[in-house]
Amino acid sequence: MQKRNATVAVIGAGDYIGGEIAKKFAAEGFTVFAGRRDGAKLEPLVKEIEASGGSIMARTLDARKEDEVAAFLNDADTHAPLEVCIFNVGANVNFPILETTDRVFRKVWEMACWAGFLAGRESARLMVPHGRGNIFFTGATASLRGGSGFAAFASAKFGLRAVAQSMARELGPKNIHVAHLIIDSGVDTAWVRERREQLWGKEALDNPDLLMPPASVAASYWQLYQQPRSAWTFELEIRPFGEKW
Amino acid sequence: MQKRNATVAVIGAGDYIGGEIAKKFAAEGFTVFAGRRDGAKLEPLVKEIEASGGSIMARTLDARKEDEVAAFLNDADTHAPLEVCIFNVGANVNFPILETTDRVFRKVWEMACWAGFLAGRESARLMVPHGRGNIFFTGATASLRGGSGFAAFASAKFGLRAVAQSMARELGPKNIHVAHLIIDSGVDTAWVRERREQLWGKEALDNPDLLMPPASVAASYWQLYQQPRSAWTFELEIRPFGEKW
Amino acid sequence: MQKRNATVAVIGAGDYIGGEIAKKFAAEGFTVFAGRRDGAKLEPLVKEIEASGGSIMARTLDARKEDEVAAFLNDADTHAPLEVCIFNVGANVNFPILETTDRVFRKVWEMACWAGFLAGRESARLMVPHGRGNIFFTGATASLRGGSGFAAFASAKFGLRAVAQSMARELGPKNIHVAHLIIDSGVDTAWVRERREQLWGKEALDNPDLLMPPASVAASYWQLYQQPRSAWTFELEIRPFGEKW
Amino acid sequence: MQKRNATVAVIGAGDYIGGEIAKKFAAEGFTVFAGRRDGAKLEPLVKEIEASGGSIMARTLDARKEDEVAAFLNDADTHAPLEVCIFNVGANVNFPILETTDRVFRKVWEMACWAGFLAGRESARLMVPHGRGNIFFTGATASLRGGSGFAAFASAKFGLRAVAQSMARELGPKNIHVAHLIIDSGVDTAWVRERREQLWGKEALDNPDLLMPPASVAASYWQLYQQPRSAWTFELEIRPFGEKW
Repeated sequence: MQKRNATVAVIGAGDYIGGEIAKKFAAEGFTVFAGRRDGAKLEPLVKEIEASGGSIMARTLDARKEDEVAAFLNDADTHAPLEVCIFNVGANVNFPILETTDRVFRKVWEMACWAGFLAGRESARLMVPHGRGNIFFTGATASLRGGSGFAAFASAKFGLRAVAQSMARELGPKNIHVAHLIIDSGVDTAWVRERREQLWGKEALDNPDLLMPPASVAASYWQLYQQPRSAWTFELEIRPFGEKW
Repeated sequence: MQKRNATVAVIGAGDYIGGEIAKKFAAEGFTVFAGRRDGAKLEPLVKEIEASGGSIMARTLDARKEDEVAAFLNDADTHAPLEVCIFNVGANVNFPILETTDRVFRKVWEMACWAGFLAGRESARLMVPHGRGNIFFTGATASLRGGSGFAAFASAKFGLRAVAQSMARELGPKNIHVAHLIIDSGVDTAWVRERREQLWGKEALDNPDLLMPPASVAASYWQLYQQPRSAWTFELEIRPFGEKW
Repeated sequence: MQKRNATVAVIGAGDYIGGEIAKKFAAEGFTVFAGRRDGAKLEPLVKEIEASGGSIMARTLDARKEDEVAAFLNDADTHAPLEVCIFNVGANVNFPILETTDRVFRKVWEMACWAGFLAGRESARLMVPHGRGNIFFTGATASLRGGSGFAAFASAKFGLRAVAQSMARELGPKNIHVAHLIIDSGVDTAWVRERREQLWGKEALDNPDLLMPPASVAASYWQLYQQPRSAWTFELEIRPFGEKW
Repeated sequence: MQKRNATVAVIGAGDYIGGEIAKKFAAEGFTVFAGRRDGAKLEPLVKEIEASGGSIMARTLDARKEDEVAAFLNDADTHAPLEVCIFNVGANVNFPILETTDRVFRKVWEMACWAGFLAGRESARLMVPHGRGNIFFTGATASLRGGSGFAAFASAKFGLRAVAQSMARELGPKNIHVAHLIIDSGVDTAWVRERREQLWGKEALDNPDLLMPPASVAASYWQLYQQPRSAWTFELEIRPFGEKW
């Protein structure tokens, strides 16, 4: 592996998608700055990446705190120029509207939209002076569709998409690639496996073609990163070949 | 005018759109409950409606406060069944992303999205037991497009649209018509007239065909209200005939 | 009924939607020019409208023939100024892609898209000199979504929507209201009743809330016609309150 | 270069985009079957690909003729399994609606939509028995937006998109990747250079950042081809970083 003098920040470096993204960029020579609510949980990821010869810095990070996000990204950019920031915090909940409490609605927004705004803006603050950079956001079906019972989640995901779109229009001409990746399926994680019938219907139970491996999501981010600036994509929607849509 | 035993709540009963909506529904016999940050400013509206034989109750209301919204709507529903709730709070701002402070981003969201969630949910709480009702939200071009400089405003408006869409899917089968009206133009208000060149470009300066009279917006809400339940519209986009799109 | 010095042309004046539109505009005082592949089948509609004191001219019309469409509309405009043209020809078919013959693909396009282009253009030719007019097109769910098995039908309906959108942008500033009405449900016709289970799933079998009465479609066209030019809608999507979407 | 036992069919192998796609896939070891209205014009492309050690078969092909398309694709599939079919026929024209003749409207549709349907269906006929394959269509801004003066072109491009979408939904579960690539900018060709001011406005005249090199389009098709089936994209929209949208 040839090391690059560049960092990638992964905000929301969970066990699945975020972890795979971290591994992919580490394997390509980036130094990964991985942030997660409980940084201690990053230990297995750190071990795996370092065992493969990659570089990773694990950080405890509350992505909803402006000063923590700014410090985390500054830290990365001080280590080596911040080349990519990936915002990957999720907060999928489903409640009938009358049972959607103000606490839930606000918290989901803070995690899935507000934190994304902070990540995007603070990355831009570092990247604009560099004259280059990449800011990628993880979306979902609920980024495009407000389904029954998803008022809180869809509202936050719609809002995040607007942040991404607005930033893409403003920052594209400044050579910063802002993109929004929409995952239109379940991702193959332990959490989803446990409740896939409830989430995706009976047909998903025995059909591996309906779940997306986290590594495929990571590969999609890598494709976005590789696009030449003469042919950038803002929104990339991906789904497994067996998915109905 | 034939009075109806029904109330319409207008949240964000400003000098323009909200005021015209109030006048239209009052003229059709509804008792209007009008809420506004500074209730005293509702006095001219109250005088005008009462002079025409209409009924209106003016209230000071911070639409971002859950208890105030609940009390306001309960109050209306106690007076006569709450038949329509119209959420009309705006918060249009434009800042480059690096100048979009956390305070601005959060406040715009609280006014344009969070308050809409509260209004929608508390209306639904009253309407579901009635087995009928109408909940209408005011959107804008920024509900569908995150333009450069509109990260805060578009994020809030996208988020509000998701709330409306999710509620429409859940509550439609319960005979509650949830709709989202998108106004794709400037509305002809003193505020817009003052800064129309900045807002809408030079061609808007001398062209009355590019501004929408508030009464036309009110007429559109009335059309939505009149739709039979066998042919409901969720999203109604309106623009003046001279508008480019 | 007060007669107007104005005509409405209904192209595709079938037994259901087209017939109801004709009745609605006749009841509002328009002289209706109704065109249909087999003009003789219009006799019951003519009798009903004339019995109510309305005016209607029935014509045999192949909407795919440029000269027939031009003559039909000229005829109407000679009678009294052509105020509204409504294009309502349908051609819903469903075939797997490998069984979609070239004959089917081309015929569906000629009926649902090409004929709409002719109707729109020839109406515009008459309306532009008048400095006013209304051209409305009937769309369907397939105007927005290419479902499995709907390559031919969706392709034609997508194409028709593009014609409508392009004409709306060009002709709006000339005071001609071009609109596209999307009916997102089954319409309550004998044909649909016969095959509703196949078409709409078992739940539609016993649920009247999932079918739209043709008169509700006609009322929606009337609402479009009544919009002031300061607040025109290009696209109106309607569905019954019980519909899932 | 390692040769593959696979063919790629490029329908509409013009001097620019189609030619670059052919070169890219040839460089990756595919045998290219290139079809063009005047096959003799393919000679420079054949020379260039063969000089690089690639394999290409040049064919004269009228993509609007069912039997010619079927024969062309069969020919390719007989040579080696047809792995990819790329439909790249364009027909961009702009006329006011009243000057859009029936001849223009029909011809644009035949080239940009009908021919795409034939290419897609005949490819599917060969790929379904293989249990695998890729069918990619070239779209444009007009695939999503019916601009003023673009009734003919947008109608055809909307229609082509519907064909692609319907085929994607039907054939995805059969392991055939159907995708639609939307190029939201001018592509850097001699033809566009000649009339770029007229087409794209003055700012495009001196700004290389607003034109997309054909090789970048080809690279995007290659990215689509490389996606694992667990994370397929149906629609890929690309634009240069300096483009306004």
